[in-house]
Parts: sequence; structure tokens; C-alpha cells
Amino acid sequence: MLWEDLQRIRSEAPLIHNITNYVVMNTTANALLAIGASPVMAHAVEEVEEMTGLARALVINIGTLSAPWVKAMIKAGKEARRRKIPIVLDPVGCGATKFRTYTAQKLMQEIRPTIIRGNASEIRALLCSSSGTKGVDSSHTSDEVFEEACELSKAAGCVVSVSGAVDIIVDGDTVARISNGHPMMAKVTGMGCTASAITGAFAAVNSSSFKAAASAMALMGIVGEIAVERSAGPGSFQLNFLDILFSIQKSDIDQRIKMQGV
Amino acid sequence: MLWEDLQRIRSEAPLIHNITNYVVMNTTANALLAIGASPVMAHAVEEVEEMTGLARALVINIGTLSAPWVKAMIKAGKEARRRKIPIVLDPVGCGATKFRTYTAQKLMQEIRPTIIRGNASEIRALLCSSSGTKGVDSSHTSDEVFEEACELSKAAGCVVSVSGAVDIIVDGDTVARISNGHPMMAKVTGMGCTASAITGAFAAVNSSSFKAAASAMALMGIVGEIAVERSAGPGSFQLNFLDILFSIQKSDIDQRIKMQGV
Amino acid sequence: MLWEDLQRIRSEAPLIHNITNYVVMNTTANALLAIGASPVMAHAVEEVEEMTGLARALVINIGTLSAPWVKAMIKAGKEARRRKIPIVLDPVGCGATKFRTYTAQKLMQEIRPTIIRGNASEIRALLCSSSGTKGVDSSHTSDEVFEEACELSKAAGCVVSVSGAVDIIVDGDTVARISNGHPMMAKVTGMGCTASAITGAFAAVNSSSFKAAASAMALMGIVGEIAVERSAGPGSFQLNFLDILFSIQKSDIDQRIKMQGV
Repeated sequence: MLWEDLQRIRSEAPLIHNITNYVVMNTTANALLAIGASPVMAHAVEEVEEMTGLARALVINIGTLSAPWVKAMIKAGKEARRRKIPIVLDPVGCGATKFRTYTAQKLMQEIRPTIIRGNASEIRALLCSSSGTKGVDSSHTSDEVFEEACELSKAAGCVVSVSGAVDIIVDGDTVARISNGHPMMAKVTGMGCTASAITGAFAAVNSSSFKAAASAMALMGIVGEIAVERSAGPGSFQLNFLDILFSIQKSDIDQRIKMQGV
Repeated sequence: MLWEDLQRIRSEAPLIHNITNYVVMNTTANALLAIGASPVMAHAVEEVEEMTGLARALVINIGTLSAPWVKAMIKAGKEARRRKIPIVLDPVGCGATKFRTYTAQKLMQEIRPTIIRGNASEIRALLCSSSGTKGVDSSHTSDEVFEEACELSKAAGCVVSVSGAVDIIVDGDTVARISNGHPMMAKVTGMGCTASAITGAFAAVNSSSFKAAASAMALMGIVGEIAVERSAGPGSFQLNFLDILFSIQKSDIDQRIKMQGV
Repeated sequence: MLWEDLQRIRSEAPLIHNITNYVVMNTTANALLAIGASPVMAHAVEEVEEMTGLARALVINIGTLSAPWVKAMIKAGKEARRRKIPIVLDPVGCGATKFRTYTAQKLMQEIRPTIIRGNASEIRALLCSSSGTKGVDSSHTSDEVFEEACELSKAAGCVVSVSGAVDIIVDGDTVARISNGHPMMAKVTGMGCTASAITGAFAAVNSSSFKAAASAMALMGIVGEIAVERSAGPGSFQLNFLDILFSIQKSDIDQRIKMQGV
């Protein structure tokens, strides 16, 4: 499934519309290009609907949000709903500030994402706004929030993808666990945001949001593992990650994949 | 000509004022530094006129535009006209949304750029707003829009530089064709935007916009070819591109250049 | 001191709140991660106070400023003052435009930074707004502005860190000089901004702003030197810089450090 969908991304080059944060725009665009998708970044309220109208998936990321961007996110999200294309929401830093928590919840209600992808702290904060998170890093493990993820999935009617040492993807009571990846990935900014963008690419070619989210996390983890083996640190990791994402073969995936439940 | 102008850029370090998109700000600044120019990014309506007043070329790129930025682009562009410094316009995604097409056309009229540099879809859309483009990638070849490029050049009284497998640079009825480059360059975000910034650097040191545009595209293509030979994928390509742009010698250029018409 | 503080950064992972420019957000976030700190970028006026409230240092950089960002900078700065956490101000391009000079001076007055880190032209312009600077690069040496740096330090009651071939850090009449570094560092965009972010990380773990500023500049210079030795140009330099910052050992620092006055 992962391999077949990756082949589809490479051959179809689906356009992925990203409304994302300033920190990662370049790296997520490059990751989408490396996987074979076609990224577009556009945030002006004047054009987001039209841009979403051209796309096969919408990825919304609140990493460096501000009021005009939130407006655009909602407008784009509603258009994506109308067109029934998948929407990935990355609630970066949800729980760290009231504005982020409020915005993430507002986006949940108004655009009803297909997939929510975040770290454990963000997912917990999204379910229960009383949690305190430290900036944009996670202070919980994904397993610690397993029940919250299931609850959020049921309440919001969407797939919840929680990244961590073990990634957990839940769709109601269905759960997948992925044990690929490497701690070095947390030493590069925006790897979570990249995971969300790649999730959008898989969702563009697979109508099962659950499978798309699982494939994305597995591929991220596998590519990350190989990249770490070839890297002296987080600088060289970044370029190796893109090189490997661009050229990864079926055999690399088959040998390394550690996925349960899909 | 290319080599002499590159030497001038390296020795004079012309200040290039960029009002560009969030995705590529870092990479275009680094490309301008690598070639020997001095980049500045500034977009506040309060300061763009003054910043353009210090620069030897202005590069405007609508990749992630919004209303306040458009205002600043116009203000900066008018100051550049007044000072008679070259203006490069990169109409990123023109044709993809009405806002982009409208903005590109408005910029054309209000600031009258010296050089328009875009891909085939963007150039076609700029001439005839009825074309449909897919995001920011090109769905036409440069040769398919040759006549439109000539027409646009004459109508707008400027040089039109169309990137593609073969780059086409037109100035009225004069045309140059450059066959350097490599498909890998399309797998890295912002290579077109980098081409526009580099065009600005050449225009800063050569009063012929036609020659400047041709030199920039040839150098981009040559550096890209060498970088691909040393790279395992789009990640390592990016760093090799900067390394080679920084240190390229006359002999590399002479051996590889495939330029007709200049 | 440098090594002990670096160990503290690595073990405590202090959260550093950055309100910085678009060009360098990604690279400074990655530098902060590589050194072991935890970066967060947030600029919305709705959330900056709360985010600063979670942080152990605030870094303000006016590289691509605009009016709403200035408001947020002031709000965050006041909260940082209230909480008595260190504030690093990087007056990028101060002197190049009236808006930048005015904003830098306004920030000085309203938030009273703990450390000002800039190049010689910026420091001079901050003291005396009549100076003309060329874009964001420096046209003076740090030694040429030594007296201005002392004067600024006394007038503003803060540490002044001037980068250059020799970095000068002054705190009233106390001065440190650091001769590490390499000219290649000026060929990569945002190395100054990275220095400011790293200064924030050291200030988060050392209550002496003077020592923090000196450690940061020495580490930047040493890592830069090693990176240049392993690099073919400014592209590979960037990745080597991060790799080395991530893994640098005490012996590398001891062997190379050229610091006087601390």
C-alpha cells in the first residue's frame, strides 16, 4: 500500500496546497517535491479558495499564525470541504498559548479536517485545553495520549496521527502503530510539519485517510532512519533526508517498515 | 560577457533589493551571496522606497503575495523606475488565481519591469489571462510560448525570459536560446525564483537587460548541471549548487555554455 | 565557562522565543536545536506575551520588520522585562532606512534589551542615526566602532556585542575580544542572526549577559572555523556548521578559542 501510493504520488504529482508556517515553508515544499508531489504555498484571503480549488489536498499548519492567516485557513478549509478533498490539520504548539488552542479548536469546528497530525502534547491540548505544553516540542509520549487520540478521533470524526518514538494513528477504534524513525529527527526544525505535508500527499492519492496517515508516518520514519545512518549531524541529515525521499526503493521500505495494525 | 559580468558582480557586490516570497527568501539570499552580490529583503511599505534607493536592482516576486506586499511592491517599483535601476518581475503562479493574474498585470502597468522572468505557463497567463495554470509549475514548454513571449516583450517594452528545458530570452524580435540545465532543478523549490534574483544581479552590472537575462539563465543552467553530477538527489543538489555558484571558473562556463543568439 | 554553559544548554534545553525575520527563521531554529536549545517562533500580537511567558530568553530581530511585528516585539519585550528574562536585540539593517533606525531606537527605549548584537554599521547607526549603512552588511570594522559600542553600552545599560573579523563585547568599560571565525561566514545569509539566537541560548543559562554574549560569539567563530575547513563553499558550510554545532567537544573549543578579556 505504501509503495503503491508512493508510486502514484510520483506519477501523478498531486498539487498540495499548504497554508503553513514561515519556518518550514521551504523545507516542506522541498519534501513535497522530493516525494514527487507538487507543492503550492498561498495564504492571501483573496486567492486561497481558488488555489484550494486546484489542489488535491489541503495542509493547514498553525506554526506561526496570525489573524489574517486564520481567516484564510478557514476560507480554504471550507472550499476543501465543499470539494471533498482531504484536509490535514497540524495544530503546532496547541496548548502553548490561548490563541493557538483557540485557533486549533476553531479550525476543527469550522473546517472539520480529515486528518489531525500532531505530537502528543498538541493532541492532548486539542482535546482538553487545560494542558500546559512547552513551546512546540512534545512533553508527552504518544502512548500516554492514546486514549485522548481515540476520543478526539471519535469526537471530531477524523483520523488522528500522533508522532513520537512510536507513531500512533487512530481512526475511531482502529489503530496503527509505527516504530520507525530516529531521535535525530527531533533535532531538525519542521520534521513534524514535513510529516503533515507528506500526509497530505498520501491522502491525495488514497481515499482512506487512515492508510494515508499511516503510510506517511512510516515513510517519514524509514527515510529518517536511513538518513541518520549517512549523517554526521542534523545539518547533513536534512540533505540526506531529501535525497533518500527522492529515490527510496521498494526494498528499503520492505526491509525496514515496522507497522502494526494496517 | 557572462564571465566578465560575473567578475563585476564578485568585485562590486551590488546590493539587490528583493521583495519576494517566504518560501525562497533564504535560498535566494544565499544564491545572491554565493554569486558575490549583496542581498537585502525588505517589504514594509514604510521603508521599501528608501531600501530601493540604496540598491542597484530590484527583484519582485509574487510567490506568496498579499495585499500589503503588493502595495510595497508598487512603491518600490516606482522608486526603481525613478532611479532607472533594473526591475526584474517574477510572476510566480500567474494564471493560477485571479489575484495573482490581476496583481502581475497591475505590477506590469504600474512599475513597468525591465525584465519579466517566469515559466511558460506564467508568461502565457500574463499575456492572456484566460489560460489555466496548475499551481506554480509550468504545464507548457518554453518553445510553445515563444510567440507569446515576443508579443509580451513588444507590448510591455521589456525583456522576457522564459525558463524551461530550453530557456528563451526575447527582446522584441531578438531572441536567445539556452540549452543548459537539468530536470533535477525542478525538484528543488525556488530555482526559478533564484534565477530571477540572479538575473537582478547581472542586470545590476550590465545595462543590456537582454544580455543580463541571458547570462543569468546560462549560469543557472551550467551551475545546475555541474551540481547534479555531484549530487545524490535534490538535497545534496542544493548545497552543491551554492558551492559551485560561489567558485565557478571561466573554463567551466566556456566548456559547457550552450547559448544561441547572444 | 563556555563549555559548562554549553553543557547546561544541552541538558536543560531552554526555550528561546524568537521574533525574527523571514529569511533566517529556519536556519536559526535549526541552530538553536543543534546547540541543544528549544526554539519557538511566534509573532502574533495575540500570543507573544504568553509565549514569552514560557521562555527563558527572548530574541528580537528586525530583519524583515513591519508595523504589526513591531507591536508584537514591544509587547513580548515588556513581558520579558517583567519576568526578568534576558532579551537579545539584533538591529538588522539599522541605519539603512529611517523605519529600521526608528524601530531599533524605539525597541531600545521601550523594552531595554539585555544584550544588543549587531555588526559595526548597525551599532554605529543605533548610537547615531546619521550614519549611512549599505543594506544589512557592515561597512565598518568592529574596532572602528569600539568607542561607540562602549558609549551605547553605558547609555543603554546593556551589553553590546559587535560582530566582525574581531568580535567585540562590551559591558560599560569591560571589554572582551574574540578573534575566531572566518570570512566565509559572511557568505551565508543569517549568520549574524544565528549569532543573536545563540546569544539568547547562552543568556538563558548564564546570568552574566557579558559572559553569555562572549561565549556565543566564541562558539560561533570556532564552529565556523571548523566548518570552513570541511566545506567546498557556502552550501556545504551550512550543513557542516549545524553538524559541528551539534557535536562539538570541549577539546575543539579549548584548542581554538581566541578570547581576551573574559
